[in-house]
Amino acid sequence: MITRHALTALDRSDPLAHFRDLFTLPDGVVYLDGNSLGALPRAAQGRIASVVSDEWGRGLIRSWNEAGWIDMPARIAGKIADSTSVNLFKLLSAALHLRPDRRVIVTERANFPTDIYIAEGLARLLDQGHMLRLVEPHEIMEAIDEDIAVVMLTHVSYHTGAMLDMASITARAHEAGALMLWDLAHSAGAVPVDLAAADADMAVGCGYKFLNGGPGAPAFLYVAERLHPQLRFPLTGWLGHAAPFAFEHSYRPAPGMAGAIVGTPPMLSLAALEVGVDIALRAPVARVREKSLQQTTILADLVAEQCAGHDLELVSPIDPSRRGSQVCFRHEHAYPIMQALIARGVIGDFRAPDILRFGITPLYLGFADLWDAVQILRDVLTSGEWRNERFQVRNKVT
Amino acid sequence: MITRHALTALDRSDPLAHFRDLFTLPDGVVYLDGNSLGALPRAAQGRIASVVSDEWGRGLIRSWNEAGWIDMPARIAGKIADSTSVNLFKLLSAALHLRPDRRVIVTERANFPTDIYIAEGLARLLDQGHMLRLVEPHEIMEAIDEDIAVVMLTHVSYHTGAMLDMASITARAHEAGALMLWDLAHSAGAVPVDLAAADADMAVGCGYKFLNGGPGAPAFLYVAERLHPQLRFPLTGWLGHAAPFAFEHSYRPAPGMAGAIVGTPPMLSLAALEVGVDIALRAPVARVREKSLQQTTILADLVAEQCAGHDLELVSPIDPSRRGSQVCFRHEHAYPIMQALIARGVIGDFRAPDILRFGITPLYLGFADLWDAVQILRDVLTSGEWRNERFQVRNKVT
Repeated sequence: MITRHALTALDRSDPLAHFRDLFTLPDGVVYLDGNSLGALPRAAQGRIASVVSDEWGRGLIRSWNEAGWIDMPARIAGKIADSTSVNLFKLLSAALHLRPDRRVIVTERANFPTDIYIAEGLARLLDQGHMLRLVEPHEIMEAIDEDIAVVMLTHVSYHTGAMLDMASITARAHEAGALMLWDLAHSAGAVPVDLAAADADMAVGCGYKFLNGGPGAPAFLYVAERLHPQLRFPLTGWLGHAAPFAFEHSYRPAPGMAGAIVGTPPMLSLAALEVGVDIALRAPVARVREKSLQQTTILADLVAEQCAGHDLELVSPIDPSRRGSQVCFRHEHAYPIMQALIARGVIGDFRAPDILRFGITPLYLGFADLWDAVQILRDVLTSGEWRNERFQVRNKVT
Repeated sequence: MITRHALTALDRSDPLAHFRDLFTLPDGVVYLDGNSLGALPRAAQGRIASVVSDEWGRGLIRSWNEAGWIDMPARIAGKIADSTSVNLFKLLSAALHLRPDRRVIVTERANFPTDIYIAEGLARLLDQGHMLRLVEPHEIMEAIDEDIAVVMLTHVSYHTGAMLDMASITARAHEAGALMLWDLAHSAGAVPVDLAAADADMAVGCGYKFLNGGPGAPAFLYVAERLHPQLRFPLTGWLGHAAPFAFEHSYRPAPGMAGAIVGTPPMLSLAALEVGVDIALRAPVARVREKSLQQTTILADLVAEQCAGHDLELVSPIDPSRRGSQVCFRHEHAYPIMQALIARGVIGDFRAPDILRFGITPLYLGFADLWDAVQILRDVLTSGEWRNERFQVRNKVT
């Protein structure tokens, strides 16, 4: 049996424990939703105040040069711009352009919906017979054949936390002559990702989850350098022009990824993101992964020990090589149970129709926090307080 | 001859004078670049700090519901999302879908480049023979014929400040069976715009110029309600789905403009924009227009009186019905002259190849400010200080 005493001992010897002080978290909260919205880095408050008061207020238009705003998208993390959805549109469009004789995009049926929707919308817009092939995780390898233009998959499932094998699926895609596009929304900042080692072609990712970039932070995109010379992005805005301030009368793309930029990026949101990315860069990814695996194991074990008989079914993989940085349980009454937990300060989230999702952010989550969270979960289940009708009311955002 | 004394008298009787206190502007600066980046509203500092510390830091993921983040795009100004460039892509694509038998987009050769680039990129992406017809302002009316799917024009020129006649051009477009799309980047917050009265079909606009929404603030878009039932947007992201949190497996657009939303909007930038928009809503637009016309007239007259013999050629229209809220002059050495002005605290901007551009924001610009700015302009021209080689160095952003 795991004890709180053993967990506080783990906290005392945790080499990442000092990162927690870099974040502000409210008292009385165990935050298990960093995979929806990461916590606020303390430094972001000062940085944003300075961007607002000094750079915008006093520098005004001069800050594009003097505060280096124009270089910010490039400085932050490769190229960062727009939302993940818009970035997906750009990359899928570029990928189809690189495979003009093929008409099929393959993806997982349970992929995050925006990935599927964006592909549907692009196929409809192009009106050239492109189609989407939706498969189950175990069918992916055999579904990749010579008809496929691009394989688009989310590395870590938003729904179950299951992680796909990036290297082997990418290799299979290439064997079939297809391009490989990875969605790293639930990976970046949480699990090791080596796009170059896997020889992946393209990737998108999210700034506001494990990178702690703030609500609606800009997203990032990646294209392997070998593809840069042939890249053609569909959203040809002025900031992606080879000479944006020459105001030429026809579009000439900036070389490589700079051509992915479209319009003026949202600078306040970008400034906040940079603070979160800087913290992630200081945390050794192997250590983050090690703590994440420890914490997901402990959380699953604690729930098994403390909440037995309450019909919680673990749906995240046991195998560490297939596990992302979250632990999910299925329960018939997942929605009101999660609302009752949130009311008690244990913040995870609900994913329709019946998933309780707990995100693990090793940078600000302690081991003893897991104990406290599971005790509250047990209380909520034992007392039946989740049956209170105020927890049945559906929020707009769940 | 205009005197400083007469101008300070105008300031004393100015019914909009109190708006200046709502903005922070650095000492020693006359800010004539509100049409590139509007000034910082005082209230934005507190609002952004509260979004960061209270809503993100303490509310965390709960703020989507409790702080009403999910309703913010809709609350702020119709629908606001993405950059102007991305919004242009959405509307042009929707417009071409509504005119499936036509292949021509007509626009002004001197339109802001992103409008042209986005249209070029879309035509290339669709690969169905769409083309762009580029015309001079005086050729617009006759260029609108039965081949035209959409007429796309910027209401107030970024380059000269010339304003087009929205009602008559829109009527001509409709007569030819074309759709009319207006770019309001240099109009919104500065000149009266009545899209409904003109029966315009579509419009985009910018949040960070006369609406004072902050660097890279999200942009807005508009589609006449009569077109909503047939609308089809190309960027089909999850937040534009009819039921975003149901995580359905296929895209169903939200009705009307809600389908224009793509991914999670950048909330910090959106919060700042709301402060600027709220101020604009409190300023009667007829008063703003009246003061703008007075100020542009005075600025042009002052330059004529004080800077005679220095080869400044007024390129903005004299006719008030054709004038936006800026005054532009052509000069062979426009670039270094503007750099010298900025070094002396008179901040306007340069537009290639030879334009000095002065934006007039009536909400925070006084009449005596114009006197002070023109005296410095005269000094710069008379002394020849702009010939100093530090003013010749081209900035990245001009």
